[in-house]
Amino acid sequence: MTTLETFDLRIEDSIAWVYFNRPERANALNQKAWDEMKVLFEELDDNNDVRVIILSGHGKHFCAGIDLELLMNVAQFSQPCEGRKREQLRKKILALQAPINAIEQCSKPVIAAIKGGCIGGGVDIISACDMRYCTDDAYFTIKEIDMGMVADLGTLQRLPKIIPPGIAREMAYTGRNVTGLEAERIGLVNRTFASAEEMYTEVMKVAQQIASKSPLSIRGTKAILNHSRDHSVADGLDYMATWNAAMLLSDDLMEAFQAKMQKRPAVYK
Amino acid sequence: MTTLETFDLRIEDSIAWVYFNRPERANALNQKAWDEMKVLFEELDDNNDVRVIILSGHGKHFCAGIDLELLMNVAQFSQPCEGRKREQLRKKILALQAPINAIEQCSKPVIAAIKGGCIGGGVDIISACDMRYCTDDAYFTIKEIDMGMVADLGTLQRLPKIIPPGIAREMAYTGRNVTGLEAERIGLVNRTFASAEEMYTEVMKVAQQIASKSPLSIRGTKAILNHSRDHSVADGLDYMATWNAAMLLSDDLMEAFQAKMQKRPAVYK
Amino acid sequence: MTTLETFDLRIEDSIAWVYFNRPERANALNQKAWDEMKVLFEELDDNNDVRVIILSGHGKHFCAGIDLELLMNVAQFSQPCEGRKREQLRKKILALQAPINAIEQCSKPVIAAIKGGCIGGGVDIISACDMRYCTDDAYFTIKEIDMGMVADLGTLQRLPKIIPPGIAREMAYTGRNVTGLEAERIGLVNRTFASAEEMYTEVMKVAQQIASKSPLSIRGTKAILNHSRDHSVADGLDYMATWNAAMLLSDDLMEAFQAKMQKRPAVYK
Amino acid sequence: MTTLETFDLRIEDSIAWVYFNRPERANALNQKAWDEMKVLFEELDDNNDVRVIILSGHGKHFCAGIDLELLMNVAQFSQPCEGRKREQLRKKILALQAPINAIEQCSKPVIAAIKGGCIGGGVDIISACDMRYCTDDAYFTIKEIDMGMVADLGTLQRLPKIIPPGIAREMAYTGRNVTGLEAERIGLVNRTFASAEEMYTEVMKVAQQIASKSPLSIRGTKAILNHSRDHSVADGLDYMATWNAAMLLSDDLMEAFQAKMQKRPAVYK
Amino acid sequence: MTTLETFDLRIEDSIAWVYFNRPERANALNQKAWDEMKVLFEELDDNNDVRVIILSGHGKHFCAGIDLELLMNVAQFSQPCEGRKREQLRKKILALQAPINAIEQCSKPVIAAIKGGCIGGGVDIISACDMRYCTDDAYFTIKEIDMGMVADLGTLQRLPKIIPPGIAREMAYTGRNVTGLEAERIGLVNRTFASAEEMYTEVMKVAQQIASKSPLSIRGTKAILNHSRDHSVADGLDYMATWNAAMLLSDDLMEAFQAKMQKRPAVYK
Amino acid sequence: MTTLETFDLRIEDSIAWVYFNRPERANALNQKAWDEMKVLFEELDDNNDVRVIILSGHGKHFCAGIDLELLMNVAQFSQPCEGRKREQLRKKILALQAPINAIEQCSKPVIAAIKGGCIGGGVDIISACDMRYCTDDAYFTIKEIDMGMVADLGTLQRLPKIIPPGIAREMAYTGRNVTGLEAERIGLVNRTFASAEEMYTEVMKVAQQIASKSPLSIRGTKAILNHSRDHSVADGLDYMATWNAAMLLSDDLMEAFQAKMQKRPAVYK
Repeated sequence: MTTLETFDLRIEDSIAWVYFNRPERANALNQKAWDEMKVLFEELDDNNDVRVIILSGHGKHFCAGIDLELLMNVAQFSQPCEGRKREQLRKKILALQAPINAIEQCSKPVIAAIKGGCIGGGVDIISACDMRYCTDDAYFTIKEIDMGMVADLGTLQRLPKIIPPGIAREMAYTGRNVTGLEAERIGLVNRTFASAEEMYTEVMKVAQQIASKSPLSIRGTKAILNHSRDHSVADGLDYMATWNAAMLLSDDLMEAFQAKMQKRPAVYK
Repeated sequence: MTTLETFDLRIEDSIAWVYFNRPERANALNQKAWDEMKVLFEELDDNNDVRVIILSGHGKHFCAGIDLELLMNVAQFSQPCEGRKREQLRKKILALQAPINAIEQCSKPVIAAIKGGCIGGGVDIISACDMRYCTDDAYFTIKEIDMGMVADLGTLQRLPKIIPPGIAREMAYTGRNVTGLEAERIGLVNRTFASAEEMYTEVMKVAQQIASKSPLSIRGTKAILNHSRDHSVADGLDYMATWNAAMLLSDDLMEAFQAKMQKRPAVYK
Repeated sequence: MTTLETFDLRIEDSIAWVYFNRPERANALNQKAWDEMKVLFEELDDNNDVRVIILSGHGKHFCAGIDLELLMNVAQFSQPCEGRKREQLRKKILALQAPINAIEQCSKPVIAAIKGGCIGGGVDIISACDMRYCTDDAYFTIKEIDMGMVADLGTLQRLPKIIPPGIAREMAYTGRNVTGLEAERIGLVNRTFASAEEMYTEVMKVAQQIASKSPLSIRGTKAILNHSRDHSVADGLDYMATWNAAMLLSDDLMEAFQAKMQKRPAVYK
Repeated sequence: MTTLETFDLRIEDSIAWVYFNRPERANALNQKAWDEMKVLFEELDDNNDVRVIILSGHGKHFCAGIDLELLMNVAQFSQPCEGRKREQLRKKILALQAPINAIEQCSKPVIAAIKGGCIGGGVDIISACDMRYCTDDAYFTIKEIDMGMVADLGTLQRLPKIIPPGIAREMAYTGRNVTGLEAERIGLVNRTFASAEEMYTEVMKVAQQIASKSPLSIRGTKAILNHSRDHSVADGLDYMATWNAAMLLSDDLMEAFQAKMQKRPAVYK
Repeated sequence: MTTLETFDLRIEDSIAWVYFNRPERANALNQKAWDEMKVLFEELDDNNDVRVIILSGHGKHFCAGIDLELLMNVAQFSQPCEGRKREQLRKKILALQAPINAIEQCSKPVIAAIKGGCIGGGVDIISACDMRYCTDDAYFTIKEIDMGMVADLGTLQRLPKIIPPGIAREMAYTGRNVTGLEAERIGLVNRTFASAEEMYTEVMKVAQQIASKSPLSIRGTKAILNHSRDHSVADGLDYMATWNAAMLLSDDLMEAFQAKMQKRPAVYK
Repeated sequence: MTTLETFDLRIEDSIAWVYFNRPERANALNQKAWDEMKVLFEELDDNNDVRVIILSGHGKHFCAGIDLELLMNVAQFSQPCEGRKREQLRKKILALQAPINAIEQCSKPVIAAIKGGCIGGGVDIISACDMRYCTDDAYFTIKEIDMGMVADLGTLQRLPKIIPPGIAREMAYTGRNVTGLEAERIGLVNRTFASAEEMYTEVMKVAQQIASKSPLSIRGTKAILNHSRDHSVADGLDYMATWNAAMLLSDDLMEAFQAKMQKRPAVYK
């Protein structure tokens, strides 16, 4: 694993803990952070010691979103030809979307554990995670509207497929905070917790459970869930049958059978 | 703005209040009302003095849906050739869908503020609004099933993408009332209020907040949210990047930056 | 109706009660059961005496999913050519999906009434039903992950479009139980009940209500709701107008009009 | 029909001849022409005296595309806010696409009869027609590349679904002329003719043939062909069945039966 | 194989010759023929002795399309409720599309060998075949327009994806004959032949070639080609990779390798 | 540019000539070649000195497709768990598709200039190029069917959208050669030439023409053409308008205007 400047990574018992690590800037994401995020999740995808990933933030806040300086640079980069300027701007936005897509495309489940603020780009990021948990006093803000811009890193594409679209629109138009408790009520997070400690303890339990399952099946399940969201049910079922034609017959299936018959927990490689 | 017979329109401080205005008929929508609705929302789309729209009803009810007389006319219009009759019927239905589509395609957020009954065509209409708020004792009914027909103005297309599909199906098959409180629980409305007064006060606050944001960004956010619902995430992200390649660099972005640095509220043209 | 071995079927007052009927095996589904399920729902689709279907289970549990023996047979069927083996496996999975699709494609609403466990294939099945109701102490489990496999009969395609996707992923990755009460909160079921008796009473009321409506319109509403889920709103509206160009003008519409004017309940053939 | 300045319209025997009518400018399309084109085709859509439309050009050329002055105005319109400028530019392009879409959405077949040059916007237009015929010495040019721009009025969307995509790309990248004879070979036109006179004579025969068929069926066929291009075959077949459920049983079907049995030509209203 | 009344079936050397067999009616398709066609192609799909299918007609013509009597029955079937009548009509059309879909979904290539007329439903049928060959003097007619109806069994969905859409529209609007020679020029058939004998000889050579290839790979290739037509390239590539993850490693691949190294023809089971 | 082992690259006058460079193996593609192809086209995408790319082969043949040794390695790589083996196989196929996708996604037009054999993977590759030209005696073969496998690198996804699908199926099922002359007739190549010299001369002229156009517009045109193939016309038009909202106003547009008014050739940066 490459040395990380803006993230902190700890791998234990098949669980990778990934922390945003610029607490002094409320974990705002500068260019370095975006670059590292992409490489990091691509490496975790490949790393056989990792079966599940927990994404959290050091310090008070989960993530304050894109660093303002970076945004200003984007807004002011100079190119005499207006057409080419926009062409580069389009590429830049696609490049900033890529690290977030890397979370979604990472073959292992990524769990967001959120305390404090999850703001702007932070919401783009957690929308691409598999599951979200938070503390009661965490809060979520689509801050882009207050920067005079349209949120362009995935929130508007992914969030309305997670929470009731009327709430998603209210958040996007008003930029208001959604607290942890409301987040649970609207399905944005799976559960909230009174404290960060409790959250980490419980999220780790979820992660341990996932890590104890067949890794092949977990990867397949995530791939299929990603596919399903963007396809019709009929297309999804055909793809599913084709997928399992390839992947169903495995050592893990056999181990599960035998464990069941021997009434012992299955142990997967 | 053209003179309105079946709607009441008031524009103040960049907020357009649109009221159904046939209270003596529980705001049932006759042909005139459908025609005016389409023109009205197309004009509000163009009107630079308007940044956000609140849709409500005069009198006791929000909207009783399509006027029965109009429905009877549609059901009985005469054409000797059965094929041409159906061809015209198809056009008629498309023509009745159009005013509701105009709400969705209007570039400014449309907020439904509902008290009393929201019935039949009323549900088609609020399903095309950006957000919905109601009083505790409001109620929502997919009444078409009791008219011996399939609801054909958008409810069946839009509602199951807003609320849990199992509830949407129950509503569509049974025609039962959903009250304001249940509506909030299932995500149909964002909030309920004890009284209409309270609702109007709070909805106006939401509208004022939206009106204070960058109008360019609000319009862009709505356009993107509309696009996202009907496209895959991958398609949505590409479209988003292309959109912001055009629209990101604006006076509003600059104003937001400067306001932030000068620690003052941003003021958008 | 063919004689059934693994199901119990009772038709009364236009309501078909379908019970899984292998209570001694917790209603696990062997090959016979899958075969019968497909034929059964195709016949109910055609049966003019049936307007709505209630799917439930005899004995303690709703359904324990695919019978382990059947799964083992699938996992071990022998074919010297690896390529042909996978080709047959793909066909087998498609063949097991078909009975569940038959529920969705059946032109009458199918209501799942769940008590006890709804496990593995049971979740695939209820995800294809129109509506779900359960007892407080029912529980739902995506058990496939504990068999070292990816759930391949529809759960991963349909469930995340019914409940918040973050919860769907947690269920799929951890295999944890979701209780009746949680199921209601997340929109998986429409309502829960303290006892099976109460559930059956109330579900029958819902069924009776549906059975009292225009059967033509109920069938049309289901067809359109199925179509809407997998198409854009624009495509759905065009399809809807074309559908009603054909089906709107009916005896049921006339009966509804007349009943309304005569202030009596409509009676549909 | 409104008075036309940039078009010439003649209706005879159910055939509408529409001519571009700025021969002194090689039928280049100024703003007036775009506006009239949209209204014209919407009116022809409604006009019951018209069953088929022939689109051609007065003077030497079919159409020289967008008028340069109009393009310059678009390129130079002033708006202090860069974001709003692009927002308006996007609307302007959509507005210029609309008259061409009106040709495609017109319910009657539109036949392009091309002599001389068909250049730039001219290619956008004929790509939206149902069929194309030309003289041997006609020529087709995607001229936009020589204006330093991407052709944005439909050529790049429609043409590669009409002719081999490799040829479409060559035309779009090089701006080279394709002659009538090559156009026939690649399927861009259905036939070429030695002279304009011959072309008009033969195209009129095709038009007369179409005009002699059931107008209801011609309209239906066009609607279905438009639908098919943009949908899967499975979706198309379902839509087709639903369409004909409404439109199949008609006076025209009966007339065709009777004519056949009476061995006489059918005559449709 | 069930006894056939309206078809003639001969299987030799892994090639199934299927003939329309109502030569006295120019192979017009009555209800019996549609029913048999569906069963026949489903059985051929399952029959391991068959690797490729040739579809042709006994007598002078390939196929005259739907039998007029059947069409009249459809047009006149009586149902007092207009809505239910259309509901049944929709089902009837879907049911008539099904045998043609069975050709497309049959896992073995189906080659149409056409002499004489291929009219109306005949064009629907050959559009669903993998490849088409004909005699010089064969002719193709979208006859439905002359019956006062929109062709509803697949021609309008499949043909414009096979031949230049402008020609497809001309055929559909005018009902004119396309001869064998033109059919070759526009890509409707792969080759034409001076006589039926020559055609059968050459088509048999093509069939023999196909029959000599890996049957597993031929089936896979057809499945993938069907999938590709209706999906984006990106979706198609992902599906392809998943398919071959299951099916690539086979006895046939090994046999091909060994045959190549031993410089002998491969022989597949 | 990195040093290349299996390709030869020459850049002159904004044209990049890329040659397959394993003539002694008929330019069969080993692992090294696939790796280099991907990097090479990504670098050409970024290289501002390149405006258009010509892809050809050193030696007698264009490209013999995937190297047999590589295919054998793929077919035999060992993994004790069958499920994981297929998971890796799927990834491997996706990885081999990627270099071909890089050609399609490269922002500059890629022209294939083909002499001798274009076989197996060679056909996958040219199907992803923008345009194809060849010598009269070149030939094209979907060779995979003779290796007992389904072609999985893009031919089956892209080719039937380029040539008549009936011919594409014949090629895929029989593995027969298509000669240069037939290739031109079916639209696979834009033109054929009597000799390789003539081909290179003429292809260079096409390339020079493209290189003389606005590079910004050429890139935009390619991006839009790629988008159009996989989207409906309506989606494509909206995307197009949004794209040009960003990219239309450019130095190149101004240069084109001025050049036109000054009656001189435009010169783009």
